[in-house]
Amino acid sequence: MAPSLDSYFQQVDTLSESFIERLRKAVAIPSVSADEERRPDVVKMGEFLASELKTLGAEVHLRPLGKQPHKEHLELPPVVLARYGSDKNKRTILVYGHYDVQPALKEDGWATEPFTLTVDDKGRMYGRGATDDKGPVLGWLNAIEAHQKAGIDFPVNLLMCFEGMEEYGSEGLDDLIHAEAKNFFADADAVCISDNYWLGTEKPCLTYGLRGCNYYSIEISGPGQDLHSGVFGGTAHEPMTDLVRVMGSLVDPQGKILIEGLDALVAPLTDEEKSLYGDIAFTMDNLYESLGSQTGLFPDKERTLMGRWRFPSLSLHGIEGAFSAPGAKTVIPAKVTGKFSIRIVPNMEIDDVNKLVEAHVNKAFAALGSKNTCKFIVQHCGKWWVASPKHWNFTAAAKAVERVWKVKPDLTREGGSIPVTLTFEQATGKNVLLLPMGSSTDAAHSINEKLDRRNYIEGIKLLGAYLHYVAEEPMNAAA
Amino acid sequence: MAPSLDSYFQQVDTLSESFIERLRKAVAIPSVSADEERRPDVVKMGEFLASELKTLGAEVHLRPLGKQPHKEHLELPPVVLARYGSDKNKRTILVYGHYDVQPALKEDGWATEPFTLTVDDKGRMYGRGATDDKGPVLGWLNAIEAHQKAGIDFPVNLLMCFEGMEEYGSEGLDDLIHAEAKNFFADADAVCISDNYWLGTEKPCLTYGLRGCNYYSIEISGPGQDLHSGVFGGTAHEPMTDLVRVMGSLVDPQGKILIEGLDALVAPLTDEEKSLYGDIAFTMDNLYESLGSQTGLFPDKERTLMGRWRFPSLSLHGIEGAFSAPGAKTVIPAKVTGKFSIRIVPNMEIDDVNKLVEAHVNKAFAALGSKNTCKFIVQHCGKWWVASPKHWNFTAAAKAVERVWKVKPDLTREGGSIPVTLTFEQATGKNVLLLPMGSSTDAAHSINEKLDRRNYIEGIKLLGAYLHYVAEEPMNAAA
Repeated sequence: MAPSLDSYFQQVDTLSESFIERLRKAVAIPSVSADEERRPDVVKMGEFLASELKTLGAEVHLRPLGKQPHKEHLELPPVVLARYGSDKNKRTILVYGHYDVQPALKEDGWATEPFTLTVDDKGRMYGRGATDDKGPVLGWLNAIEAHQKAGIDFPVNLLMCFEGMEEYGSEGLDDLIHAEAKNFFADADAVCISDNYWLGTEKPCLTYGLRGCNYYSIEISGPGQDLHSGVFGGTAHEPMTDLVRVMGSLVDPQGKILIEGLDALVAPLTDEEKSLYGDIAFTMDNLYESLGSQTGLFPDKERTLMGRWRFPSLSLHGIEGAFSAPGAKTVIPAKVTGKFSIRIVPNMEIDDVNKLVEAHVNKAFAALGSKNTCKFIVQHCGKWWVASPKHWNFTAAAKAVERVWKVKPDLTREGGSIPVTLTFEQATGKNVLLLPMGSSTDAAHSINEKLDRRNYIEGIKLLGAYLHYVAEEPMNAAA
Repeated sequence: MAPSLDSYFQQVDTLSESFIERLRKAVAIPSVSADEERRPDVVKMGEFLASELKTLGAEVHLRPLGKQPHKEHLELPPVVLARYGSDKNKRTILVYGHYDVQPALKEDGWATEPFTLTVDDKGRMYGRGATDDKGPVLGWLNAIEAHQKAGIDFPVNLLMCFEGMEEYGSEGLDDLIHAEAKNFFADADAVCISDNYWLGTEKPCLTYGLRGCNYYSIEISGPGQDLHSGVFGGTAHEPMTDLVRVMGSLVDPQGKILIEGLDALVAPLTDEEKSLYGDIAFTMDNLYESLGSQTGLFPDKERTLMGRWRFPSLSLHGIEGAFSAPGAKTVIPAKVTGKFSIRIVPNMEIDDVNKLVEAHVNKAFAALGSKNTCKFIVQHCGKWWVASPKHWNFTAAAKAVERVWKVKPDLTREGGSIPVTLTFEQATGKNVLLLPMGSSTDAAHSINEKLDRRNYIEGIKLLGAYLHYVAEEPMNAAA
């Protein structure tokens, strides 16, 4: 099967240094979407991609998104839409990635210059955006180039959608995806996104599910302004006293959510599903290493993975309006806003969850008998996503993993949300596959972000191989 | 009695515009002690006072305090020590005040420029430091000037101690007071501090008691670094979950402290003491006005005043290390530090209180069954203070109030702490009187701080009258 892969792989190895050079050029452009002053660099990065794609013979459009909401003086960076091939006899795969990056400053604690790709003696390639998501985005370009240089026919038509605002809420992207679903993306047969990570460092995975996230605020107010605790302590209801009690009523120290009725919304665990967790390449040591401590809730990996993927969780993020600086300040804060979120899973519907949470908060506050005022606010909601891992899109990817990495991939879900996944599924009606390139130790969003050379180069092979197996999958496989 | 007071009062009225001008000059110097960059202005303010005092014929010393602890690049502003008169046949009164101010920025919400004294049509004089504590400090200088211009003999020897670090913990002052107790302050017969406020807006008071303040932190930590709630929510013990529970165990929404054994340390309420509260000029509307809300704990003024003055209170100030900005961030904070303080009253000994609080925190955390780590920290402690209001120092002040304001003053305590009060008492062994100039609506430490023109001008009369009555009090009155 996929007989031309060996020469493709060979070509990737031959070109590996130039592929690293391409990543070096991309990392050198500080395309930080959250930083207004870096906006020209974000645009420059989009133009760099467009130029590389044109050189490779792709049809490229820089699609403007207009002004940035709430920052009308700022133009959003363009979405790079590209097509490579338009053979009606081939399948068409739509791939998504993003070319913007998280902020990074040497002072934050980086061991190297964050915007200079620095490869150490173990092949760890450090640099902001190396793994999130410039490495994977360039992976598709590199796959095209290796096919060309090896003289192998490209197995599919490739549609590309690379955005420049992912790290800042993907402003404007949803509308574009919905608008292009019947236009630029019209012939897509399936979608592939490479913007997440392996569960560990050794075994690749395919990801078929994500938790959603509903984010809430509880605002408790009383006095007209902050008060001095010497003057008013002991005479007035204090908003902080009420807030920590309401926040404390949401979840217990063992992670059990205490909101009445919430459990009943969660899809029951079947024996079949239960049996899947034992085989996943994950150990408690993996958890402890990434936690940086041994403070896990559960002693076994099965329950830990379920806690991360298939059960809801509730985290208390912090309090706005209270004293939060170092030192000591004898203030009674007048208005405090507690922030928390719930990671939601099948079959929790957003509205049902919100109703239960609001009812719980109101009841918990009422029980305090406080004269303060409590306001419950839904900040934002995001649905969970689960795809069918039996679809040919996944089957092809699994074969590619086995060919490149000599091992069957784990089928995983993720605890976090990647909202664009659901948007692509809903807009195109096609199966979406998450096919990660990097590993769990890549430190996306942290200092010292890196992509291992091995994951990059074998990842380029994987993306190409995936497209070859996609081309071979029977048309009538499970949709 | 005190026959020369009428012409003194007349002179104060005559000079009132120039006294306001003196306050305007003082407010214009932004002597913010907490702001390193303003340190030269703090020094400038000290030099302004020294210069004014010299012009009035006082002996003045700018006493250096050395480097600021933990900020060795910063010189502490000098303490202004001054003496006006050294007649062995007169009593000597030591007065204290501070010439530094709280930070203030127009952007914080001030209606006027904070460092420009702005007088409105109701005679409210807005400006940072107007009431806290430049108005009262200048009050003593103005009293000297009015005596000179009216040709009246100054009734006492006046020792003055004006510091420039009060709003930043009075760094270095305690040592100086103890060192000067037998030197510069050696002949002081009593101490008077004008750095607090009336209970309301109409009736003056003399203050004879203060609560102390013990400030604590609870540090709960688990993971090695902040975590993403999508990836780790539902798999690890979260420090915030533990912290809000421990904080919630300290005090109930009705203000009742839940620390076992603490109640037993509080001096019992006697019938005699209980009977004092009814006559105090204070209404629930006064409370609601200063709260800016009707969220008082108790329906009656007696229990409210007791809550403020003679019972301990516990306030939760905030959490360091959690998400505290506006917006939404899906972080699991790795280390969170809850801050709270207890206002202590007779007969709570600091060490006894600390032991009970620590035991409570440790027990509450242990009950959670969390794998996180909890550390209890005592940040700082301050003892309560109660003076004898039957001392001649208070009798003289009461007569002065009646002469100036035509009403007997309330004898009050305060909920807050003014640590220097206790230091002066301990170092000199003399009676200390708190004689406020400003009223409850002056908003010291807040935006739109002000001093009413009436309180300033009548306050200057009051300080002078107090010194005259001090001179007349029999030497053998209760000490």
